[in-house]
Amino acid sequence: MVRELILSRILGIDPGLHITGWGIVDYDGFHLGYIAHGVIVTSTADEISLRLSYIFKQLSDIIEKYSPLEVGVENVFVNKNPESSLKLGMARGAVICCVGVLGLKIAEYTPNKIKKSIVGSGHATKDQVSIMVQKLLNCGSVKLDAADALATAICHAHHRTFYEAKR
Amino acid sequence: MVRELILSRILGIDPGLHITGWGIVDYDGFHLGYIAHGVIVTSTADEISLRLSYIFKQLSDIIEKYSPLEVGVENVFVNKNPESSLKLGMARGAVICCVGVLGLKIAEYTPNKIKKSIVGSGHATKDQVSIMVQKLLNCGSVKLDAADALATAICHAHHRTFYEAKR
Repeated sequence: MVRELILSRILGIDPGLHITGWGIVDYDGFHLGYIAHGVIVTSTADEISLRLSYIFKQLSDIIEKYSPLEVGVENVFVNKNPESSLKLGMARGAVICCVGVLGLKIAEYTPNKIKKSIVGSGHATKDQVSIMVQKLLNCGSVKLDAADALATAICHAHHRTFYEAKR
Repeated sequence: MVRELILSRILGIDPGLHITGWGIVDYDGFHLGYIAHGVIVTSTADEISLRLSYIFKQLSDIIEKYSPLEVGVENVFVNKNPESSLKLGMARGAVICCVGVLGLKIAEYTPNKIKKSIVGSGHATKDQVSIMVQKLLNCGSVKLDAADALATAICHAHHRTFYEAKR
């Protein structure tokens, strides 16, 4: 039996009002291929509408440039401080809204699930995640927020395969 | 001295993941004119990306149809529950993002400031706000969420005038 390899391009996003990490990988069901990564940074000095629309526009440009087929997003950590949760929610709202407006489906993963999927432990440090992401993708140095985003993309690749196999 | 009347069209928004109220008034510095109001409703059965992008698209259509020049938004009530704050934050993120992407500036007002501006007391009930909005605008029956949005637009009209006078 010949198994057809279907290449999927996955965008992983780690939303944040100050820094939103993003990373893109290709996955054929067996191998992961690194494509790109980066961060969208907004200034605390700017008005909130400017910051959110900047995240929206930058993410639109990234999606247009790399044409991902699937999107995975890290579930925002629900802070004990409601004010912080509100800010995180706004950044998450801009990111999810952008992906939805551009017609892409989104899968959500908790930070623990992502860490477990990459390092094998749900309590791994950010540095451990970053090192494993660089090993798995054979790419150069990756900033922590972008490493989390690439880890989310890899996590989606693994769980997507599991989901496909179950059908 | 002839004072020039500059007509401004103001969009008021009361963001929410389930119901987002909106209302539009014209203001010439002396008189308020009712233009339109409504609610954007999303289903809890739908995925979050569908709900947020629906809010974004509906609001885009409203802004395109009525061409407001200024936008006032009610500050989301920060719930004690961080999970609720996160959801409110996401709806607020989609709304503010949409206004920012379309190049409009946004002013924010606390619920207390809006109530005080309309009823004269920061502790007025939603029903009292709705009745006063209907009296001030001489419009028909208005649903509570849309009444809050119209109240936000009226509040912005008043504070904008004060701001202009101070300059």
